[in-house]
Amino acid sequence: MTKARELIAVVLLLAALGTGEIAHAAPDVLPAWNSGAVKTAILSYVTTVTDPESDDYVAASDRVAVFDNDGTLWAEQPMFFQFEFVLHRIRQLAPKHPEWRSQQPFQAVLEDDREALLEQGLRAFRPLAVAAQTGMTLEQYDDLASAFLQTAKHPELGTRYIDLVYAPIVELVAYLQRAGFKVFIVSGGDIGFIRSFSEQAYGIPRENVIGSSVEYELKETAAGLAVFREGGTRAPNVRRFKAQNIQLHIGRRPILAVGNSDGDLAMLQYTSDGNEPTLVLLIDHDDADREFSYNEGAERVLAMAPGQGWHTVSVRRDFSFVFPIQSTN
Amino acid sequence: MTKARELIAVVLLLAALGTGEIAHAAPDVLPAWNSGAVKTAILSYVTTVTDPESDDYVAASDRVAVFDNDGTLWAEQPMFFQFEFVLHRIRQLAPKHPEWRSQQPFQAVLEDDREALLEQGLRAFRPLAVAAQTGMTLEQYDDLASAFLQTAKHPELGTRYIDLVYAPIVELVAYLQRAGFKVFIVSGGDIGFIRSFSEQAYGIPRENVIGSSVEYELKETAAGLAVFREGGTRAPNVRRFKAQNIQLHIGRRPILAVGNSDGDLAMLQYTSDGNEPTLVLLIDHDDADREFSYNEGAERVLAMAPGQGWHTVSVRRDFSFVFPIQSTN
Repeated sequence: MTKARELIAVVLLLAALGTGEIAHAAPDVLPAWNSGAVKTAILSYVTTVTDPESDDYVAASDRVAVFDNDGTLWAEQPMFFQFEFVLHRIRQLAPKHPEWRSQQPFQAVLEDDREALLEQGLRAFRPLAVAAQTGMTLEQYDDLASAFLQTAKHPELGTRYIDLVYAPIVELVAYLQRAGFKVFIVSGGDIGFIRSFSEQAYGIPRENVIGSSVEYELKETAAGLAVFREGGTRAPNVRRFKAQNIQLHIGRRPILAVGNSDGDLAMLQYTSDGNEPTLVLLIDHDDADREFSYNEGAERVLAMAPGQGWHTVSVRRDFSFVFPIQSTN
Repeated sequence: MTKARELIAVVLLLAALGTGEIAHAAPDVLPAWNSGAVKTAILSYVTTVTDPESDDYVAASDRVAVFDNDGTLWAEQPMFFQFEFVLHRIRQLAPKHPEWRSQQPFQAVLEDDREALLEQGLRAFRPLAVAAQTGMTLEQYDDLASAFLQTAKHPELGTRYIDLVYAPIVELVAYLQRAGFKVFIVSGGDIGFIRSFSEQAYGIPRENVIGSSVEYELKETAAGLAVFREGGTRAPNVRRFKAQNIQLHIGRRPILAVGNSDGDLAMLQYTSDGNEPTLVLLIDHDDADREFSYNEGAERVLAMAPGQGWHTVSVRRDFSFVFPIQSTN
């Protein structure tokens, strides 16, 4: 190499380094989050556990993050979206079931009498869920759920259900994945329902979804073997079952957990009790303007969070916008 | 661009292509496999489904491969290695259980009377398995299993159990992972037992292990919440349960499956019945010199394979060596 060429090479190298440094420092990796204690805690935690020089470094294989779904990754008010899907299916199937017109809880659904339906309590949901969501292959169910989420609109917000994901949380998922985390959904919702949209909506692959489940049954069909959804139910994936199923599916204790209700308490506590440095986030739905304000079913966990060193995420203060459609970009 | 420059660009391009082709053709990506129909089928299948130009291209997200464990990823003769671990634990625990000396099936274990033990049938294994493998945290079990596999030696081969993995199959796993496949173990063995060594021995992460499982129970301990292994058993992960649990854990139908016994039949058939191009491999243990020759419990699947277009892998003919210790490299 001539002297002149060497000089040019050095200048180009310095220029490249300079650009690199500026490019590295400049972009906000979490633009959907407002500056504040929570955003700082997230950035600081991820930087620390991914820094091989840090005492708190965690090997990539152990970087497991778990996210609740309803009320954490997407909205859940005024009703779980899966519940709306079930009601939709019941209405679709009704012509084949004339007996439903005078049989509860079906009658309440067909008369669109939500009050009467809710009065019958959660137990009433079970026959609806079984009628709407079983006796078909997993692929058929996937198609039905997917079609519903792509077309049906939220009764109050007028937006498609699939668009009601929390942009800052989805952004956090992507940020963690880039930082080598394996991100899992751990939901009380049906595992197949969530899988029908998790890749598209959240960038979380189907195999990283843990949820409640009906019984699966392998059957011979004209097109060969297929797995069917059948009526029997396993224990719902809430409370302690979340921690237990995390071990069954993942086989590691998470180091990062995000939830929003008392049903997530065991999962958050189990994460928090691990030996590695941990980060626990609890979403507080305090924004009546941009989504919903409520804390029913989250009273215990909201009261516990500060004493446990968990970070309470205020939708109102910490989210620069809530749903993708509200983005100003 | 001037004519001269164009010419140079074309020459450089051709040179690069040429080098690329030579570099591509040269290394044998599966050196532990002998040349033959099976090796050719594997290479051709993987090349095709990963080629975006091919009609048989499969997107990376759908490239799911499932492997049985015992007799597929490692040896299983004369006894499942987990069975040996259970006997080892019973002997370890015996001083605390003087009643075992006159109580079957424990007595047979403590007297090292394998014949008497086997005569009692598989049902006798259950109380042994429960006594040896439950009432402890997952972490404690992991440590016990790992320590056993790292130290105990196979009674006939004199090699540590952890070293009795099938080198060509482990090589295949790595080849598939490089080709963008997500590789899972789907075993009748205990999920926690396999997780204790799957990353080290196979390069398959803990979360990609599906197996039989005892009940998990979240409990409060002095050190916080921990998940314990308890006595209740779920349905063992064999036969149709393999296909069902593949859906529960992965949520996709595999496109590639490897097994060696009738317990894998449903999994192989389920894979084979999918809509994507599939590859099904069946290990035939026909090598009494380098490992064991047997086909008990594999009669049906061995008879079916040719008619299904599944590839029978002959250990004797298709493996250039069996265990890593036999490698000439």
